[in-house]
Amino acid sequence: MIFTLRPSAGGAVLALPLVRRTRDPFQGHWALPGGWLDAAEGLDAAASRTLAETTGLTASYLEQLYAFGDVDRSTTRVVSIVYWALLRQDEVDAQRAAHDAAGDAPENVAWSAVEDLPALAFDHNQIITYALWRLRNKVGYSRIAHGLLPDEFTLAELREVNESILGRRLDPANFRRQAEASGTLIPTDRFRTGSHRPARLYRYDVAVELAERGPLSAPPESDHPVPHRIEE
Amino acid sequence: MIFTLRPSAGGAVLALPLVRRTRDPFQGHWALPGGWLDAAEGLDAAASRTLAETTGLTASYLEQLYAFGDVDRSTTRVVSIVYWALLRQDEVDAQRAAHDAAGDAPENVAWSAVEDLPALAFDHNQIITYALWRLRNKVGYSRIAHGLLPDEFTLAELREVNESILGRRLDPANFRRQAEASGTLIPTDRFRTGSHRPARLYRYDVAVELAERGPLSAPPESDHPVPHRIEE
Repeated sequence: MIFTLRPSAGGAVLALPLVRRTRDPFQGHWALPGGWLDAAEGLDAAASRTLAETTGLTASYLEQLYAFGDVDRSTTRVVSIVYWALLRQDEVDAQRAAHDAAGDAPENVAWSAVEDLPALAFDHNQIITYALWRLRNKVGYSRIAHGLLPDEFTLAELREVNESILGRRLDPANFRRQAEASGTLIPTDRFRTGSHRPARLYRYDVAVELAERGPLSAPPESDHPVPHRIEE
Repeated sequence: MIFTLRPSAGGAVLALPLVRRTRDPFQGHWALPGGWLDAAEGLDAAASRTLAETTGLTASYLEQLYAFGDVDRSTTRVVSIVYWALLRQDEVDAQRAAHDAAGDAPENVAWSAVEDLPALAFDHNQIITYALWRLRNKVGYSRIAHGLLPDEFTLAELREVNESILGRRLDPANFRRQAEASGTLIPTDRFRTGSHRPARLYRYDVAVELAERGPLSAPPESDHPVPHRIEE
């Protein structure tokens, strides 16, 4: 499951890619991207591979969300170990452009706003409901918004990401106070300038980020030093 | 994985039940309790059943911890979806006494302090390391200690549970302030009396507890209205 924030008229909205099923059960229905675990493949690797094969997307760090295994969730007995990641819209766009240039853009993929989902195959609507609940529970002023922000960001940008995930406005002064007290943001010497008064740029404390992955930590990808962490 | 706090000379210590393997691989080694998922059984039900079959223990609420699926973690390809719960020592003792009275106490079970584990079968030492990391990350002044406390408890008792999990002392005044500000404790009109001055008894706010289980919520067990929640 990949979440991104997509610009829209009323502010950014959470969206995720769906894949149209080309065979039964649920042929023609939309579903979460996924696939089968290979015999010689770890869970994390299978999540990355099936995501890439179905959507063309890669994420620097996919995190295990939950294993769903109700007896009647498919026509045969299927246990789905669901992974998720947050991707910035510009990362999604760049990956899409690269596939278009290479002529290997995947078919049968479409992005849907989470508030406007069709009836999906299997229990996938319920899985998304669970993921959104986890996402909204964790968001507050925490690092969770990290995966949807550039490396440096203003506190207003951080707040807007949080507001989009939560679907409600946050008090700017309270948010600023909590964010500054969180111990996870490092102020830079740079400022965002534009039509508003200059706003200081912040970045996340990578040391905190990596420590929080704990015993499951893997060496960060060489091409992306900061994994996009949703929660521990 | 079942954690309890066991009294010891230096204060309570975290302990968990292990099962001695009676066949290869790792025959004679200690391992986490577990077993195979039946074709007609959900994941939660399988966790409860295999825990009961191997250790004789039941927990009102087992929570999914993580799925472990490295290719080389067993001699065949095995994915383990690990569940955990916290049980009070008096619950453990009562369940053990009931099995002894019925003559059906399971064999090949022993409790081990987490700081004194033998070399376990498979990757079970690593799984416990991960669980302890999650437990210690979540403990703070949160509801996590709930499963190790009676229905009503003093703030000192709550602090001592937290200290045992963390393996370090906490400042009593800071802890009291944070606990009272957490919004999850309800003061009662009752007090613990004894050799010290009377201390007010608190209980957890069950409404908060149930709300936090979110879309995965099941109706609480009729014989135990408050599930033992480790984290959301």
